[in-house]
Amino acid sequence: MARKSITPSTEVLLYADSEMDADMLYFGKVFVPDPFIAFSHQGKRIAVVSQLEFARVHKESQFDEVLSLEAVMQEARSVCRKAFVYPGSIVAHLARRRGIKAFRVSDIFPVGVAIQLGDLGVKLEVVEGMLLPEREFKTDEEAQAIKQGNAASSAGFKVVEKLLAKAEIRRGYLYLDGRRLTSEKVQEAIAVECLKRGAIAANTIVAGGDQACDPHCRGSGPLRANELIIVDIFPRISSTGYHGDMTRTYLKGRASEGQKALYNTVFEAEQEAIKEHRSGKSATLIYKSVREKFDAAGYPTRKENGFPVGFIHGLGHGLGLAVHEPPRVNPSGSRLRSGQVITVEPGLYYPGLGGARVEDVIRVRKGEPEMLSQHGYRWLIR
Amino acid sequence: MARKSITPSTEVLLYADSEMDADMLYFGKVFVPDPFIAFSHQGKRIAVVSQLEFARVHKESQFDEVLSLEAVMQEARSVCRKAFVYPGSIVAHLARRRGIKAFRVSDIFPVGVAIQLGDLGVKLEVVEGMLLPEREFKTDEEAQAIKQGNAASSAGFKVVEKLLAKAEIRRGYLYLDGRRLTSEKVQEAIAVECLKRGAIAANTIVAGGDQACDPHCRGSGPLRANELIIVDIFPRISSTGYHGDMTRTYLKGRASEGQKALYNTVFEAEQEAIKEHRSGKSATLIYKSVREKFDAAGYPTRKENGFPVGFIHGLGHGLGLAVHEPPRVNPSGSRLRSGQVITVEPGLYYPGLGGARVEDVIRVRKGEPEMLSQHGYRWLIR
Repeated sequence: MARKSITPSTEVLLYADSEMDADMLYFGKVFVPDPFIAFSHQGKRIAVVSQLEFARVHKESQFDEVLSLEAVMQEARSVCRKAFVYPGSIVAHLARRRGIKAFRVSDIFPVGVAIQLGDLGVKLEVVEGMLLPEREFKTDEEAQAIKQGNAASSAGFKVVEKLLAKAEIRRGYLYLDGRRLTSEKVQEAIAVECLKRGAIAANTIVAGGDQACDPHCRGSGPLRANELIIVDIFPRISSTGYHGDMTRTYLKGRASEGQKALYNTVFEAEQEAIKEHRSGKSATLIYKSVREKFDAAGYPTRKENGFPVGFIHGLGHGLGLAVHEPPRVNPSGSRLRSGQVITVEPGLYYPGLGGARVEDVIRVRKGEPEMLSQHGYRWLIR
Repeated sequence: MARKSITPSTEVLLYADSEMDADMLYFGKVFVPDPFIAFSHQGKRIAVVSQLEFARVHKESQFDEVLSLEAVMQEARSVCRKAFVYPGSIVAHLARRRGIKAFRVSDIFPVGVAIQLGDLGVKLEVVEGMLLPEREFKTDEEAQAIKQGNAASSAGFKVVEKLLAKAEIRRGYLYLDGRRLTSEKVQEAIAVECLKRGAIAANTIVAGGDQACDPHCRGSGPLRANELIIVDIFPRISSTGYHGDMTRTYLKGRASEGQKALYNTVFEAEQEAIKEHRSGKSATLIYKSVREKFDAAGYPTRKENGFPVGFIHGLGHGLGLAVHEPPRVNPSGSRLRSGQVITVEPGLYYPGLGGARVEDVIRVRKGEPEMLSQHGYRWLIR
């Protein structure tokens, strides 16, 4: 297996299912639940699928050629000089027949197949970054699909706002229909609403108080009055595979001056940062300017009692068929380019006071960015 | 990168997130959304996670040791003679410090990391089959988690049965509340019910008529009276990651003699095949005996107009943290062993007549298997 071929290959090779693998879904625009072979050849996209998938992939996908796995396998077995291995021998056979000497593969290409191909004399060039770089730049159709994802997020926030408005406060806890309102209950209500919009909202964050200070904590247990509650909804539209990703922060009851100041600082930073996302601008500088604003406003990023506090994550990330994809807007980002779809999500986290995060999604262009998410910012709910 | 080290390594290495990767979830029993390093050393399970995950993984996981990614990274950078690469240099540093010369990795280990490790002198042995073979044999606790998944499937069937019972037939189509009942509507109702049981039911199949003859077709559009409807629900319990996987076939209206014979043949084959699943029995022979029964009953498996018909898939597959995992009960299966959890799902598919499949889940033991799924078999709904 060669990391770098002397003549870099222009053809790509994928071996994955397209439920999980964003490259494969992007490449063929069809859902196939089991790993299959796909590759490019002279500008065409070719898939090799089993007879169970053949008719559907042929009809629904954007592959230019769909080959029958069974037919190719029979062919490969009959001409194969070495012991037949799956799926390596099939790839090697097709590559030989088409005169392809090397393929570019993603850095998450399965090592088992890479070794088979190495033994069979097929060279692989492992790409750093995106295998299909065009995935980073979204067409109007893709932007529309992401908007649809964010519309599902927004529908989720409406449900949350209704639940919080309806909830009663008793001894510091939120109650609905006589029962304590929990993070889990709110997560379920959001998921049900997203389902109605054709989206699966997994791992939704509904985290109150100090729980929200761990950005990977989904939140659990009873929700309390007078504390900041972060709600982060990143649903996947089932028909297209594209995601939405939005965050709002709420507080039911009465906010302290500290909570108000924290929320407003984050909200204003978000609104300003959105405008900064223009093609040609340095992602690192946009990130840094938010962090500096936070520092200046008295919200430092540092360790307290061994625990990171402040602005403890990046400002944003690419969004599309994956929830997290290039580019990154963080200390090691590069220049923004038109067509990139990026989340803008500053946040501040201080155990004791709580966490606040506000997140929208934009598409980069020359001037002010195109908004791909829409939802109000009402956060105080009495 | 060596495929086979001279002294086979007893230590395993994983680099994956545990939302998607079943081995990683099994290894540490904790959900981490981003890829991280984990490995074994002298019987201990060790994870390297970022400061954002540290506290949670330390508290919730079954890792014996949790290392801070930031701390290890600093250490590795300071002693690293070659250019630092992520995550390879970290693994190489930890391996050197602990005297580990080689790791076993799964065949889907990412090739990019494998190449880094090869360059850094860490040997990898790519395992064929399961990296953690014990994953195939389920404990009582795991069986319980799978039962919970199947209880969600069963709750889904109850919803389907209610919808079909309530539906009216007009001009051959099913109507509910004045609207045509569609596959999508039923899929959504199932997903909502599963959510209430803490499970995500993605890609549920509700396929009527000829749609059901393509086992990978999820089904779409209006459902018709008097045709076989296959419903296959494989929800994942969010808290544990374990799946259920059950199938029932329904018909609303009046069944033809041909439909009745098809359904009954499949149902009886399933009930008989369940009893055959005992430790020591050959999976291939169990599969073949079903296929022979179908042949003898006048249901051949073959190609008609280039399209496969009959018993066109395997009899069953292992079920656990993945929907499809070893063992397979098909023409190339091996002997069953106690503790394996397997679906039993014969099916017959003939375009024009329709498809029928019935699926339950068992755990293999010496005598008759332990049933891990429970739901009635009423299929005719007037």
